[in-house]
Amino acid sequence: MPQTLNHVLRPRSIAVVGASNDVRKRGYQAIQSLQRDKFPGKIYPINPKEKEILGLPVFKSLEEVQEDVDIALIATPAAIVPSVLEQCGKRHVKGAVVLAVGFGETGSDGIKLQQQITAIGKREGVRIVGPNTSGVFNLHHCMNLTGIRDLPKGSVAILSQSGNMALSLITEIRAKSNLGFSAYIGVGNEADIQFHEYLDYFRKDADTNIIVMFVDGMRDGRKFLQVAKQTVEEKPIVLLKSGRSDKGRQAAHSHTGALAGLSVVANTAFKRAGIITIDHSDELFPAAEALATLKPLSDNRIAVLSDGGGHGALAADALADYHLSVVDISKTTIKQLKTILNGSLIIQNPVDLAGATDADPLIFAQCAEVLIADPAVDALMIVGLFGGYHLRFSDSLLSTEEEAARQLVALAAKSGKPIVVHSLYASYRSRPLDILKEHHVPVHESIDIAAKCLSVLYEYGHHLSISHDRSNFVLDSEGKTKSEVTDLFHQVRKAGRKNLIESEARQMLLSHGIPVTPWECAVTADDAVEAAARIGYPVVMKILSPDVLHKSDIGGVLLNLKNEDMVQDGFDLLIGRARRQNQRAKMNGVILTPMMPKGVEIVVGVTQDPQFGPVMMFGLGGIMVEVLKDVSFRVLPIGGISAPQMLEEIRARDILKGIRGQAGCDKPAIVDLLLGVSNFVEAYNDHIAELDLNPIIVYEKGLSVVDTRIILK
Amino acid sequence: MPQTLNHVLRPRSIAVVGASNDVRKRGYQAIQSLQRDKFPGKIYPINPKEKEILGLPVFKSLEEVQEDVDIALIATPAAIVPSVLEQCGKRHVKGAVVLAVGFGETGSDGIKLQQQITAIGKREGVRIVGPNTSGVFNLHHCMNLTGIRDLPKGSVAILSQSGNMALSLITEIRAKSNLGFSAYIGVGNEADIQFHEYLDYFRKDADTNIIVMFVDGMRDGRKFLQVAKQTVEEKPIVLLKSGRSDKGRQAAHSHTGALAGLSVVANTAFKRAGIITIDHSDELFPAAEALATLKPLSDNRIAVLSDGGGHGALAADALADYHLSVVDISKTTIKQLKTILNGSLIIQNPVDLAGATDADPLIFAQCAEVLIADPAVDALMIVGLFGGYHLRFSDSLLSTEEEAARQLVALAAKSGKPIVVHSLYASYRSRPLDILKEHHVPVHESIDIAAKCLSVLYEYGHHLSISHDRSNFVLDSEGKTKSEVTDLFHQVRKAGRKNLIESEARQMLLSHGIPVTPWECAVTADDAVEAAARIGYPVVMKILSPDVLHKSDIGGVLLNLKNEDMVQDGFDLLIGRARRQNQRAKMNGVILTPMMPKGVEIVVGVTQDPQFGPVMMFGLGGIMVEVLKDVSFRVLPIGGISAPQMLEEIRARDILKGIRGQAGCDKPAIVDLLLGVSNFVEAYNDHIAELDLNPIIVYEKGLSVVDTRIILK
Repeated sequence: MPQTLNHVLRPRSIAVVGASNDVRKRGYQAIQSLQRDKFPGKIYPINPKEKEILGLPVFKSLEEVQEDVDIALIATPAAIVPSVLEQCGKRHVKGAVVLAVGFGETGSDGIKLQQQITAIGKREGVRIVGPNTSGVFNLHHCMNLTGIRDLPKGSVAILSQSGNMALSLITEIRAKSNLGFSAYIGVGNEADIQFHEYLDYFRKDADTNIIVMFVDGMRDGRKFLQVAKQTVEEKPIVLLKSGRSDKGRQAAHSHTGALAGLSVVANTAFKRAGIITIDHSDELFPAAEALATLKPLSDNRIAVLSDGGGHGALAADALADYHLSVVDISKTTIKQLKTILNGSLIIQNPVDLAGATDADPLIFAQCAEVLIADPAVDALMIVGLFGGYHLRFSDSLLSTEEEAARQLVALAAKSGKPIVVHSLYASYRSRPLDILKEHHVPVHESIDIAAKCLSVLYEYGHHLSISHDRSNFVLDSEGKTKSEVTDLFHQVRKAGRKNLIESEARQMLLSHGIPVTPWECAVTADDAVEAAARIGYPVVMKILSPDVLHKSDIGGVLLNLKNEDMVQDGFDLLIGRARRQNQRAKMNGVILTPMMPKGVEIVVGVTQDPQFGPVMMFGLGGIMVEVLKDVSFRVLPIGGISAPQMLEEIRARDILKGIRGQAGCDKPAIVDLLLGVSNFVEAYNDHIAELDLNPIIVYEKGLSVVDTRIILK
Repeated sequence: MPQTLNHVLRPRSIAVVGASNDVRKRGYQAIQSLQRDKFPGKIYPINPKEKEILGLPVFKSLEEVQEDVDIALIATPAAIVPSVLEQCGKRHVKGAVVLAVGFGETGSDGIKLQQQITAIGKREGVRIVGPNTSGVFNLHHCMNLTGIRDLPKGSVAILSQSGNMALSLITEIRAKSNLGFSAYIGVGNEADIQFHEYLDYFRKDADTNIIVMFVDGMRDGRKFLQVAKQTVEEKPIVLLKSGRSDKGRQAAHSHTGALAGLSVVANTAFKRAGIITIDHSDELFPAAEALATLKPLSDNRIAVLSDGGGHGALAADALADYHLSVVDISKTTIKQLKTILNGSLIIQNPVDLAGATDADPLIFAQCAEVLIADPAVDALMIVGLFGGYHLRFSDSLLSTEEEAARQLVALAAKSGKPIVVHSLYASYRSRPLDILKEHHVPVHESIDIAAKCLSVLYEYGHHLSISHDRSNFVLDSEGKTKSEVTDLFHQVRKAGRKNLIESEARQMLLSHGIPVTPWECAVTADDAVEAAARIGYPVVMKILSPDVLHKSDIGGVLLNLKNEDMVQDGFDLLIGRARRQNQRAKMNGVILTPMMPKGVEIVVGVTQDPQFGPVMMFGLGGIMVEVLKDVSFRVLPIGGISAPQMLEEIRARDILKGIRGQAGCDKPAIVDLLLGVSNFVEAYNDHIAELDLNPIIVYEKGLSVVDTRIILK
């Protein structure tokens, strides 16, 4: 399969189906590009009506081509694509790039057409890029099928579900940096080749050292995470995903037919895989540039050098937004800065030069050298006028400013500590700024974006420097299943049921050591009374029926029953309520459990995300989940590093510590529970659609799972 | 006082104290600017050592100048400023612009020096701009004392505590728009003239139609709010404030010596006054440009037109971030769009042209016309490649694209509905984009910033279209005070106390109709038992001492005392605990109140903000305030519109409605309480430093203030 992608991205011969003499058509532009870029292989234009295109002989159909064809660029309307793919199969074409829209993104007819081409591709051994793709290019192979002109060669790979977003990035990189591109793949609808396969190609591609992505949604997010985890060990991935909002998600769906789950689930998963996730499109280029040219940061202590207090204060605010530390600089550093500045200024970080550089921009470089030498400083951010002193004050300052720029470049190179510059002259022609940009000192017009650059360097460096558990994202049931549980799942399925009744769910969880409270089932009122006596009063009694999914909604849960009479009466009450609700509900009697003392209530749930499969949610019970939606997520499986993180990621985390003199919660017990549930779902993921433990009551020592719900796939 | 500012900003004569022949010095640059710009008044360079500067005769001192001097630009070091100001006084100079740093921003010596110049200014009748100011300019008066060159004349006024932030804005406006400036004031340390005075000048200034501000902190935020409220009725104010973060606040303080309170308090107050508050410096210019050139929006329904699904989805996300509505377009609109696009595309908002415009950018204008005509659409956002079709595809498209731009311009003008364009070619030379920019269709490279422009238009329009209560921000005690309360405050002061004991606070609140629970005081255990009987068991008993501020911290609160014995024992316990804590604590015995049934706990507090004076906080009691900091703020006074808003602004607002079958809270009672407290603080603001009602228990009907605390100024 990777070979196939080699064929697609390094083909020895290309057929252009739908070749054209119309300059506005891709069937013309692609051939023009290939010729202009001196594509080393053969080009076969296919068009039943043309004789010659751009000097090349035209074939009436693929069948007419006698020689081997590696890939076909299919520039025909959607309806003809299936028959073209059939011909590709006959001619042993290895890959097809399908441009047409009108497939999975357009509703049921389009979905059918897409299924048809997927099937043909599979049957005929033709791997498909797209459909609904803007094409591909590989500049190191002199191949460009996108129609985009003037592409600088370099090492940035783009993997995008939007051709226009790729064009945005290309346009910006071309205008603002010296970077260039290795290759681009327009992913389109993923009818055949998927994100993770492309990513794996780029992982191995020696011409690529960073991968920039735009994603609407993925068909197999989990496999993507697996490949991404490996990839980031070698080269960074920067990813922008649409669909933060409902309307954005809807637009993404009608763009590539992608189904997306919760944005927060995706972001957490991407982060765990070490992918740098970007929320705003204007941060994509700056983040990519920083990661492509600078060393990742293993710590986040930033010094700020400004030539005015306003910019300095704003820089501190921006760095705080990204959780970077505006570090306290050492006394030695302060002393050295005072010597340079020779004034009565209060020196602290942000260091405000307050006009000291107006006549001599070299002071910037001198102060930068002192700050960079401070062992407590990991990186430097310069904000203000640098690069524009010769514009603001006097042309005579130009050469000094250039010299300062050269010194900053040398300083960054020698120290290995990144320097990032904000200049209000960033969009002006400025030779000093050009010197910086040419030598890996990024320059930005926005303070916030300059801060963002440092933040992505730290995010990437931090990922590389710490341990990650189970972040291979492989669900491995081996050795985890128990035959009695598997048997029970099969029995329930055989009975045509999708819901486990509570006693079944409890039995399964208990087999795996999940601390559910003890329980007894009863089918008569007398049984119930006996069971209650065994459990010990007070008890909780709940209706037991596969047809009653939300017991409390129908009054199917009775709390704090204190004696025989209450149990006796309660039994009839429960059966009656369930019956009133649903005449034909299958009744399995009731389940009794001990009434547990108060504690802190938590909730653990597992659902299936359309992109990533099983995802676990953790939160505090009651209003914290229901009103404040204060929860954390992890794609399963998790291990001993992720589980405690889930506890720390909720806003109300301090409640677990114990507040206002109350006892804290047994956090290790919660962590064990999360790991236990993760293992359980890993063992039976084929079966479980949803799992809910709600509530779980946590004490200073230990915890009890009080209610459980499992729904089958 | 406004006259004084007329003198400062429209002077007939200017003395430059510290005039210089050194081109790098302000004492040279200012004179050069005045001459170059043909300043219509007289210029008097002052320097004891020079004879002639730029062709002008130099005076040894101000005293030597025989004619009237309106203002002095003081370009000397800080230490000399007091004596120069004395001379200004003698010569009846009306205003002084003090550039020097080294005043309030540098610590105690600087603060003293600043107090000295403030006093001299007051005594001598010389109004002071600064110190620590970068100067002022008034382009309509041909006066520029800032040394900044090439300033386009226009109607944007800048009021800034950072010269460099002003320079950023000027640089950006010059590079990216056709806007120009009316005037600039570098506010500096506000030693004399304050923000609100400058603002009032701009409010009345016919040359100004928008005011852009950068603020570290204000000396009198309340007066500023009062003037701002009036100003925004005539022209918009856009404001960027530093100090969102701790380090940012610290940097701001050492920049201008400004003391800032909570950022959220300031933002809420600015918003209520109708000021457009900006969080990120890169949004300041775009917001100002939009407000300066486009009509405010009274509703927030946005249509998006994109030539690719990726940009469309990202635009929807960005609009959602700013709480703008990506509106459902009508069936008629969809039908008309289908006719234009002639394809099988699914048409919804964002409208994705999906390549239909590649060969004919005029389709943009046609679709825009249809969308703008939809009555459900208030504004249009175009995202993608527009302006770059001739760059991306074929030079031959240039004239069509220009025509499309002209049509869009005409459409915006005719319909009165704003059109904002994102173009990935925004930083390229593009004639079609220039046409848009020249005619009030803003063009941005960032989708997020284009969305931000629409959001500020709506924020401003919304403010103008709705009612606001008490947002004149005037604290008016008239008719609100009661003599018995005022007397009590004075008695406490006379006794040398800063803390009211609880019974005093309760008495005051009760006089103003605040529903505190009934109470009794007792100085012996027997008294306490009798009091408890009158109140009715169960009771709460608390220590009563002006020296015990946080009663519960020392165990000074006993809940749920059910009988005589418990009260008897409790009395001794409380006195003992208080005594152990503080041997010399003054003891007033205990206070008894009924033990109230459970309900929803809320908290209302009032503190004095260093910028804005009394500020009220509202939140849910317990963990919601303590752990989640889920609170809302208002600068007092408030009225019947603000009070309910405070209830809706907390994240946990749904708890007040009643959740999970629980009864809701009596919201009107909470609103009455907030208004009552606001009135109370308004009546006695001279006395109250802090007021705390915590907790207040709210029921389905009514509420009870259970504990109170008032601290005097």
